[in-house]
Amino acid sequence: MRADCARELMARCDELGKISDDVGRLTRAFASPAMRRANKLVGSWMRAAGMRVRVDAAFNLLGRWASSQPNAKTFLLGSHLDTVRDAGKYDGPLGVLTAIAAVLHLRERGVQLPFNVEIVGFSDEEGVRYQTAYLGSNAFTGTLKPADLARIREKQIEKARRSEKFLGYAEVHIEQGPVLESKNLPVGVVTAIAGQSRIRVEFRGEAGHAGTVPMNLRQDALAGAAELVLAAERCGVAATVGKLDVLPGASNVIPGQAVLTLDIRHQSDSRRIAAVKSLHSKARSLARRRGLKLLWQPVQENDAVPCDKMLTNIFSQCVANRGLTVLQLPSGAGHDAVVLAKICPVAMLFVRCKGGISHNPAESIKTADARVAIEVLADFLIAVAAVYDRRQSPR
Amino acid sequence: MRADCARELMARCDELGKISDDVGRLTRAFASPAMRRANKLVGSWMRAAGMRVRVDAAFNLLGRWASSQPNAKTFLLGSHLDTVRDAGKYDGPLGVLTAIAAVLHLRERGVQLPFNVEIVGFSDEEGVRYQTAYLGSNAFTGTLKPADLARIREKQIEKARRSEKFLGYAEVHIEQGPVLESKNLPVGVVTAIAGQSRIRVEFRGEAGHAGTVPMNLRQDALAGAAELVLAAERCGVAATVGKLDVLPGASNVIPGQAVLTLDIRHQSDSRRIAAVKSLHSKARSLARRRGLKLLWQPVQENDAVPCDKMLTNIFSQCVANRGLTVLQLPSGAGHDAVVLAKICPVAMLFVRCKGGISHNPAESIKTADARVAIEVLADFLIAVAAVYDRRQSPR
Repeated sequence: MRADCARELMARCDELGKISDDVGRLTRAFASPAMRRANKLVGSWMRAAGMRVRVDAAFNLLGRWASSQPNAKTFLLGSHLDTVRDAGKYDGPLGVLTAIAAVLHLRERGVQLPFNVEIVGFSDEEGVRYQTAYLGSNAFTGTLKPADLARIREKQIEKARRSEKFLGYAEVHIEQGPVLESKNLPVGVVTAIAGQSRIRVEFRGEAGHAGTVPMNLRQDALAGAAELVLAAERCGVAATVGKLDVLPGASNVIPGQAVLTLDIRHQSDSRRIAAVKSLHSKARSLARRRGLKLLWQPVQENDAVPCDKMLTNIFSQCVANRGLTVLQLPSGAGHDAVVLAKICPVAMLFVRCKGGISHNPAESIKTADARVAIEVLADFLIAVAAVYDRRQSPR
Repeated sequence: MRADCARELMARCDELGKISDDVGRLTRAFASPAMRRANKLVGSWMRAAGMRVRVDAAFNLLGRWASSQPNAKTFLLGSHLDTVRDAGKYDGPLGVLTAIAAVLHLRERGVQLPFNVEIVGFSDEEGVRYQTAYLGSNAFTGTLKPADLARIREKQIEKARRSEKFLGYAEVHIEQGPVLESKNLPVGVVTAIAGQSRIRVEFRGEAGHAGTVPMNLRQDALAGAAELVLAAERCGVAATVGKLDVLPGASNVIPGQAVLTLDIRHQSDSRRIAAVKSLHSKARSLARRRGLKLLWQPVQENDAVPCDKMLTNIFSQCVANRGLTVLQLPSGAGHDAVVLAKICPVAMLFVRCKGGISHNPAESIKTADARVAIEVLADFLIAVAAVYDRRQSPR
């Protein structure tokens, strides 16, 4: 691998990070002027890597490295090129640019693959423009919902649908969490994108004067909520109370109402569902004991998306071959891979990011880690090709 | 006692409750037009009870029933005539109007007391006008603070200072809590006005993505706050967390900061201070264990004001003489008696109020309970007179 390959990737992340819809901060929304400019710039890098480039009807940027084999199928690489508001420069772009670097590296080595490689820069993973994530990948996979189409101006994005059967999809992404950093590892292999339950929980008690209502006559809604916060912390899966509103909210008034959000995630749907049930039962019993009224309102429920076992094992083997400890971990955040999993096997490689910080201009990765990611992704394609040759299909 | 005496008191509360600075809700602020009208109306009732009436320089309404004995000292009765915004009609006025009814009752029976009785309708207990409570009573007792005077327009209120030595002060007030209702008692005798500590507590942890930061790597500020909420509940004194703000406050973000108010009250200063110390120590240890930063900022500290033992015993005896169970209880809320205690012995009688509700148009008391309050207060004056005759002073 060229010595400056990772430094080039880092420089490209910097350059791309300057293309923004906002002045003074990085924001790149679906189908915006900045996205068009980003597609143009990244497209030029794809071309420099020897790929054929186009933008589809959903503003996804596509770069294709065609196989010399007749009737070759296609393996997909990619991530997204849109960002959140006031974003960091790695969440999304890193996956697209790592793929370009891996393809360039293989071509420079004269590698021929038995399948086409197509790199996709998806146009809407964060959903800043229309508050509906995955427009680009859902258009690509043909899984747009009528509700999504109803709220957008660009009705033509349906035409981006691809009907062919893909061999698989591999996505490199920053971890957005602190696990790799805490284990001192540059990369990790994703086992699944965790399922998620979101619940709005409300406790209603009785407001009262902090000075005049004795402790034994209180129905303090916040005390009930506090019990649930601590129960969530001990429930055995990733559970977060991120929002808690206390009413009326005066220092000398006993809280009559407490409203909180519960966010429960796990890669095992059965463990997640069991945790939700156990917290619901806990909430019911503490509300009964405290004389509180409980409102338990499920807001959202997404099942886990498991990564393909074979592709994940190949990623793991490639990491091990570089002399690195293999860490398999679930992804708690959603990714384009969730949508691609509807039409083909998917796999993901996480890259360590500083402090686990993302969705923030402070996002940061190391050049050495970027190099590992390029190497592992290039090795991965070669390994997939070997399996493909043996089986004529990785499935 | 005249049969309609309590009904008259209730009708007067209704009539006085219509005198407001606001349209459509009861608000009577210090030195406002409504207060002048209220003083005029209540003054007319004082006159009808045979009292000499004046308004002092601090807008306190004073009604005097002079003793026929030469050089008689004065016993004070009263409460306040100002209200909170959107108030109920009993918090304050009940004490003044009960005192007038008790005096009228004694005069109708031809009772002669060995001391003057002076009823005071204090002009500012709630502090709505200047956000500084007790302007009326502090002017009366000569204990105004320079800071209070600095923020008000009516500088002349200092002239309301009374230099004579009063025999005592007795105040009837709605309980503003649910204890009497829960014990099915019309009145209760106050042992002390509780002391209070107010503390601002802040936990600082590390915000993070609810999906990507594993439970064992979190520094969740809300989880720390929840532990303190539950510790406060178990600390053995009246402890309230009335306000809790969680930042950044998004359902998918681990709370990085939690700010709460702690309100601790007890009639024993040593028990209150011990509870505060124990909660501070608990907060420190849980913050250490959780890797949180703790900010513990005392905001206010008021010592308890004990009621006079002899006057309180007299009240209790008068309640018992009516065939009622005597309940002695602390007051968690502040009252004019707190200020009067600076210059003379004080005592208070609480009247049951519906649901413990106060500072709300829904304030409600029973006519039968008002009757008990008038009877007990009249009996109290006779009993104080008996002690006074025996000792030539109740002290």
